[in-house]
Amino acid sequence: MKNFMDQDFLLNTATAKRLYHDYAENLPIIDYHCHLAPKEIYEDKHYSNITQVWLAKDHYKWRQMRWNGVEEKYITGDANDYDKFLKYAETLEVAIGNPLYHWSHLELKKYFQYDGVLNRHTAPMVWELCNKKLQDGFGAREMIRQSNVEVICTTDDPIDSLEWHRRIMTDHFTTSVLPTWRPDRVVNIQKEDYTDYLKQLEEVSGIAVTGYATLMDALRNRMDFFHANGCFISDHGLDYIMYEAFDDTVIEEIFRKRMKGEKLSIQEIRQYKTAILLALGAEYKKRNWVMQLHYGVQRDLNQAIYQEIGADAGIDAIDNYTSASEFGQFLNALEVNGQLPKSIIYSLNPTDNAIIGTVIGCFQDSSTVAKLQHGAAWWFNDHKSGMQEQMTSLANLGLLGNFIGMLTDSRSFLSYTRHEYFRRIMCNMLGEWVENGEYPQDFMTLERIVKGISYYNAKRYFDLL
Amino acid sequence: MKNFMDQDFLLNTATAKRLYHDYAENLPIIDYHCHLAPKEIYEDKHYSNITQVWLAKDHYKWRQMRWNGVEEKYITGDANDYDKFLKYAETLEVAIGNPLYHWSHLELKKYFQYDGVLNRHTAPMVWELCNKKLQDGFGAREMIRQSNVEVICTTDDPIDSLEWHRRIMTDHFTTSVLPTWRPDRVVNIQKEDYTDYLKQLEEVSGIAVTGYATLMDALRNRMDFFHANGCFISDHGLDYIMYEAFDDTVIEEIFRKRMKGEKLSIQEIRQYKTAILLALGAEYKKRNWVMQLHYGVQRDLNQAIYQEIGADAGIDAIDNYTSASEFGQFLNALEVNGQLPKSIIYSLNPTDNAIIGTVIGCFQDSSTVAKLQHGAAWWFNDHKSGMQEQMTSLANLGLLGNFIGMLTDSRSFLSYTRHEYFRRIMCNMLGEWVENGEYPQDFMTLERIVKGISYYNAKRYFDLL
Amino acid sequence: MKNFMDQDFLLNTATAKRLYHDYAENLPIIDYHCHLAPKEIYEDKHYSNITQVWLAKDHYKWRQMRWNGVEEKYITGDANDYDKFLKYAETLEVAIGNPLYHWSHLELKKYFQYDGVLNRHTAPMVWELCNKKLQDGFGAREMIRQSNVEVICTTDDPIDSLEWHRRIMTDHFTTSVLPTWRPDRVVNIQKEDYTDYLKQLEEVSGIAVTGYATLMDALRNRMDFFHANGCFISDHGLDYIMYEAFDDTVIEEIFRKRMKGEKLSIQEIRQYKTAILLALGAEYKKRNWVMQLHYGVQRDLNQAIYQEIGADAGIDAIDNYTSASEFGQFLNALEVNGQLPKSIIYSLNPTDNAIIGTVIGCFQDSSTVAKLQHGAAWWFNDHKSGMQEQMTSLANLGLLGNFIGMLTDSRSFLSYTRHEYFRRIMCNMLGEWVENGEYPQDFMTLERIVKGISYYNAKRYFDLL
Repeated sequence: MKNFMDQDFLLNTATAKRLYHDYAENLPIIDYHCHLAPKEIYEDKHYSNITQVWLAKDHYKWRQMRWNGVEEKYITGDANDYDKFLKYAETLEVAIGNPLYHWSHLELKKYFQYDGVLNRHTAPMVWELCNKKLQDGFGAREMIRQSNVEVICTTDDPIDSLEWHRRIMTDHFTTSVLPTWRPDRVVNIQKEDYTDYLKQLEEVSGIAVTGYATLMDALRNRMDFFHANGCFISDHGLDYIMYEAFDDTVIEEIFRKRMKGEKLSIQEIRQYKTAILLALGAEYKKRNWVMQLHYGVQRDLNQAIYQEIGADAGIDAIDNYTSASEFGQFLNALEVNGQLPKSIIYSLNPTDNAIIGTVIGCFQDSSTVAKLQHGAAWWFNDHKSGMQEQMTSLANLGLLGNFIGMLTDSRSFLSYTRHEYFRRIMCNMLGEWVENGEYPQDFMTLERIVKGISYYNAKRYFDLL
Repeated sequence: MKNFMDQDFLLNTATAKRLYHDYAENLPIIDYHCHLAPKEIYEDKHYSNITQVWLAKDHYKWRQMRWNGVEEKYITGDANDYDKFLKYAETLEVAIGNPLYHWSHLELKKYFQYDGVLNRHTAPMVWELCNKKLQDGFGAREMIRQSNVEVICTTDDPIDSLEWHRRIMTDHFTTSVLPTWRPDRVVNIQKEDYTDYLKQLEEVSGIAVTGYATLMDALRNRMDFFHANGCFISDHGLDYIMYEAFDDTVIEEIFRKRMKGEKLSIQEIRQYKTAILLALGAEYKKRNWVMQLHYGVQRDLNQAIYQEIGADAGIDAIDNYTSASEFGQFLNALEVNGQLPKSIIYSLNPTDNAIIGTVIGCFQDSSTVAKLQHGAAWWFNDHKSGMQEQMTSLANLGLLGNFIGMLTDSRSFLSYTRHEYFRRIMCNMLGEWVENGEYPQDFMTLERIVKGISYYNAKRYFDLL
Repeated sequence: MKNFMDQDFLLNTATAKRLYHDYAENLPIIDYHCHLAPKEIYEDKHYSNITQVWLAKDHYKWRQMRWNGVEEKYITGDANDYDKFLKYAETLEVAIGNPLYHWSHLELKKYFQYDGVLNRHTAPMVWELCNKKLQDGFGAREMIRQSNVEVICTTDDPIDSLEWHRRIMTDHFTTSVLPTWRPDRVVNIQKEDYTDYLKQLEEVSGIAVTGYATLMDALRNRMDFFHANGCFISDHGLDYIMYEAFDDTVIEEIFRKRMKGEKLSIQEIRQYKTAILLALGAEYKKRNWVMQLHYGVQRDLNQAIYQEIGADAGIDAIDNYTSASEFGQFLNALEVNGQLPKSIIYSLNPTDNAIIGTVIGCFQDSSTVAKLQHGAAWWFNDHKSGMQEQMTSLANLGLLGNFIGMLTDSRSFLSYTRHEYFRRIMCNMLGEWVENGEYPQDFMTLERIVKGISYYNAKRYFDLL
């Protein structure tokens, strides 16, 4: 019987312990995908209590509390902070097997030096302990510093001024805080606010968007601006990765229809989206940027809650509409023109693992080691079995040793423990293979692999060396 | 090396044994979904031999026998009962890893005190042993009594008289035998017998069904009747959970077309089904009933066998046509009107686990703890790995501790061992997490969780307290 | 800690070791599906070095090398053979968990008596050692002989002369080398070369193909020719298993349209394909042939590489377009007419496992034990977890004990180690169940099961007794 979440948490063999403690544990973090607010980093946000840190924005926790029958006033409502914390502690009790159970305790241990269990009985004591540390000045920058984070890539709209990134840059903060180019609003031509958005784009770029060609000019202008501010990565949230054939003239026509307020057909929407994603991909390739494609999400499913609380309220789910064949054709359309950038593909639906692994395997080349990456287990898959499945799939179908590893995808400064969680699970898998005689006890190579997946592969992949 | 299916069957750690034997083993059963015949319970059905119990109606066993090349005369034909039993015993030998192997041996052990292996060599002895007990008067009610069953919910058509349930109710049988509302025939507007069925519905309800509005009147009438007879749960067998937008007038129009014998379009069928399911859902909500939605089945696939034997002949399979997005929209359409009842969602396709877990997670609220439930591993998934996968998914995405647990879904009075099977597997999973340091050795909370999943959560969920 | 890939590789319990070493290890191989060139067998192909054996045609290895950023000249280009070998050795280092890692080392051990690890440091020594043995005359026939192969079924087009099979037959080679009927080109009516192909078919059959009826005559003629040359198995590579209703006259009409060069609609293509597959299935049934259906592949996805290198270049992927319902209807359409042959169904998409297992379970009968087979984990699934998942699914849903087991699906004479890999994994699963008390320690039956899955079930299934 192992102790609860001790130093060898999730490390079930001697080899696993050695791999983790000797190689993985102390490496810095490159968090190439998160949703931290650069303003909060710049301002070194401080918190009055643990509820502010844990429950103010974390829709993962909100969902679980609702699952436990907690009233909304204790979740997103106006109950007092201690009562909210207590409701969360009670929820954790039945969250056996849930990653939140582990993340919460890892965070208590790492950031608040609390080694025990959080439940309704210990909640008052944990509340005091955490709040004392927070009130003693434990804020955003110190959280990042303690987490040994080398690079943070936030998520930013093309029209963003990047003001806070720029301020941080001149501020001698040891962690690089860099923008990520996330142009969803320019892709989503079917949305009502599309034309309004283009006006904002015109304004910040200084380029009149009179057609699709000038739209691309404006975007290139903004990409150059992002590039100048350290951006090396883009991100797209897609329903699914589509490919609808088109010829170039039709795209101008579709764009004009949309500008005139005419309704687009589904085919036209698909053509436009295919076209602009291919065009953007080509631009990424030119700039040596990485293209991230996230798909398979149903957003804001519960309209009753959405009307009240808005987006990111814990009311999203996995979608299953996708075509492996369109995904393949999309990558091919870039590749045949020599325009396929480094890319990371994530599906929220875990049944797509083998599809992603085999499709990207068709497009690897010598320009970059593992140029196409199967993104780390993401959001709803961000748990022990999800990570094991993603890594097993990658090991079966590609080269696990070239994986760029984990990201936080988080809005919280304490979520860096997800990297610890990931590294433990990864080391445990590798350790088990070695102990089982499936890989040799070649610790020189194992060191290279473990350090690579934890840190160095990402550093090399993003050209941060 | 563990002994074959001894008292610690499937319990691989000391903690698992403790959880099972101390907490789960002796709790009563709430079998909220089965296909037992209330008439047979009322009449306390007796059997002349084990073939009558095991093979007369069990299409799970029939399939396996066909898979072993057994001739149909030994399966559903006129061979003698001993020969049929022998063929089944021979089939079991190669059924390594199959849940029938375990269920059959659990039943022999629990109900017939046979601790050995059933195979072609032991078949004569087992035949004698079982038949002696059956001929000594071991019948349906004693089987239920020995199984410690508190509540049985059968499966009943809205036009059913509930005669046998009513008789049992006045009969001082210690187990409650309650009806389940299963209105598939009123949903399946595309079927030939739809209009005939409505005539029967008119008759039993005493309400003339002249349009969709009066159809709903008739159904409400029958729901009230079911409610008065103890019903608190409905069940729907759907191809998939659909959502097709409609306005109210169109449904009356579709209904009239159907009554006139006109052919409906696929869109019209989908609109009608969406409408009536939403209307029924709202009625369930009013009555505090639970809505069960089962989908993902291809029924009666082998038409050669179907022509000869009929339905439930072991010729059904998993279907993969489903839309996570329509499923989400369906729940949302109920929720926005405050009409979403407690619901249990089951897909026969195990690749839907994560979809179900994430979609229902969007609709949990404080009206009931875990108001939306991810139904237990069902039918073709009702085996060790299927149960582990369903519970792992639920633990990852929701709160396993609030799961209402197992059902039998069976036509046999001996299938209550499936609850034992389930509880062992569940305790083993939890025990492993504790031994592995992934959950604390907090046996007070573990007791609450294990007892909850085994029994108390269902009791609370169905308001049986 | 187990030693790296020693005699007990993948055998984690005493029972597993006993099952493998006592029952499975020394049985012959029936390789009922591979892509070996009969000409190379006839000519007893010899190799000048290990690169010629390993890397000349193996697109599995090519993919992994591309994943490691190796330049194409070292993969399919004009680099020298030693450098290619070294690049592969370097790639293996990071291929932790990949089946190629295990296959490569199993091949080095079995065929070249090299027990160590292959990596960049040992590559020069391994290069010498392998090449010495190859240059000493270790060729194709000796590789097959050492592998204890009883039957090889190659993959052959209906228009093939079977010249090399016929020569081998008169050549007293102890392994039977038999043709497989693979009529993809006659099914793919939508392809440009369809009419050209029919001309070739006319020529070899001596039958004028003037319509669909005479096309079937020509095919029957060729089936008889294949049959006379020992063929007992067919193979189809399908996008997915389809069923589109048709009447017989429409097929003649579709065929004529195609012959006149008119464009066919998607429905017409689906009707033709459904019709010809049903017609071929009926012919297989008459001849007691086995029908293999492989589906779920996207071929030649990377057109840049395809233009340069052609097919089988490591640029294929898994597809996810399939309908469980059409699959069921297709089998039913054969079954209702008593024309369903023995069939083996394989999907490249592992999420189809449960669909295949349940659909084929509807069509088992007493004409053959396990007449419908769920094909072994194939191509991208041909790894430890893929095999475990396929066998677990089969055990859950059918009868694992009646499984006909492994095939190589390979272009290499050294791939017979995949049977060893499979047998070890299978014995390990069974051993674990026994040790865990889930199956009795009945070694007489276990021997029957293990020997069956390894060898005897295939022998019986293909009527090779």
